[in-house]
Amino acid sequence: MTLDDTLLALADPTRRAILQRLSRGEARVTELAEPFDISLNSVSKHIRILERADLVRRRRAGREHLLTFNTAPFDELAEWMTAQRTLWMNRLDALDAMLRAEDRAAVPAPKRRKKRGSR
Amino acid sequence: MTLDDTLLALADPTRRAILQRLSRGEARVTELAEPFDISLNSVSKHIRILERADLVRRRRAGREHLLTFNTAPFDELAEWMTAQRTLWMNRLDALDAMLRAEDRAAVPAPKRRKKRGSR
Repeated sequence: MTLDDTLLALADPTRRAILQRLSRGEARVTELAEPFDISLNSVSKHIRILERADLVRRRRAGREHLLTFNTAPFDELAEWMTAQRTLWMNRLDALDAMLRAEDRAAVPAPKRRKKRGSR
Repeated sequence: MTLDDTLLALADPTRRAILQRLSRGEARVTELAEPFDISLNSVSKHIRILERADLVRRRRAGREHLLTFNTAPFDELAEWMTAQRTLWMNRLDALDAMLRAEDRAAVPAPKRRKKRGSR
């Protein structure tokens, strides 16, 4: 189970719709297949991809297979995204601070504005 | 630009490494290619996939092409993940509350514990 598995599993509207259904509670394969205009076999394939990414778990209740949503892989993905976004935001803040500092350096004293000329 | 584009663009370790580099500041294509053991052409292809997903933007500075990270597509993805996770957590809470209520119903008064027998 890697970030690649998670991302590839999520990169399909049918699989996202299956997860969306499972986020409202566990379900049988046939229940999951119902709203889709595709074969039960196709739905099973999608479910297997979700299981491989550990986004879906299967449990047996007697003769039934019940599928459950597992949100854990979301954590790793969310963590990665937050780290990148934070780095970028910090970078923008640093750039902003640098530009402001340059601006202040260009104006030796607050009341000298009129002498600055070409700006 | 869709959630599919975002997810497929992110589902590759080289492309995630490119974004990771860009999250520390904008860069030229050659700079981005440097740490990778693949051709400049391959790196350019990865960048085009990231541009198509609007995760990377290109700006010209004279004769140079500078690439910038755009975090906006992360928002839509994070929003979708949060919505699914919240639904699922609420579902678990509801289940928990239901089980507790059943438990209380099985025990008419708090002091009768000893009479409950087979548990």
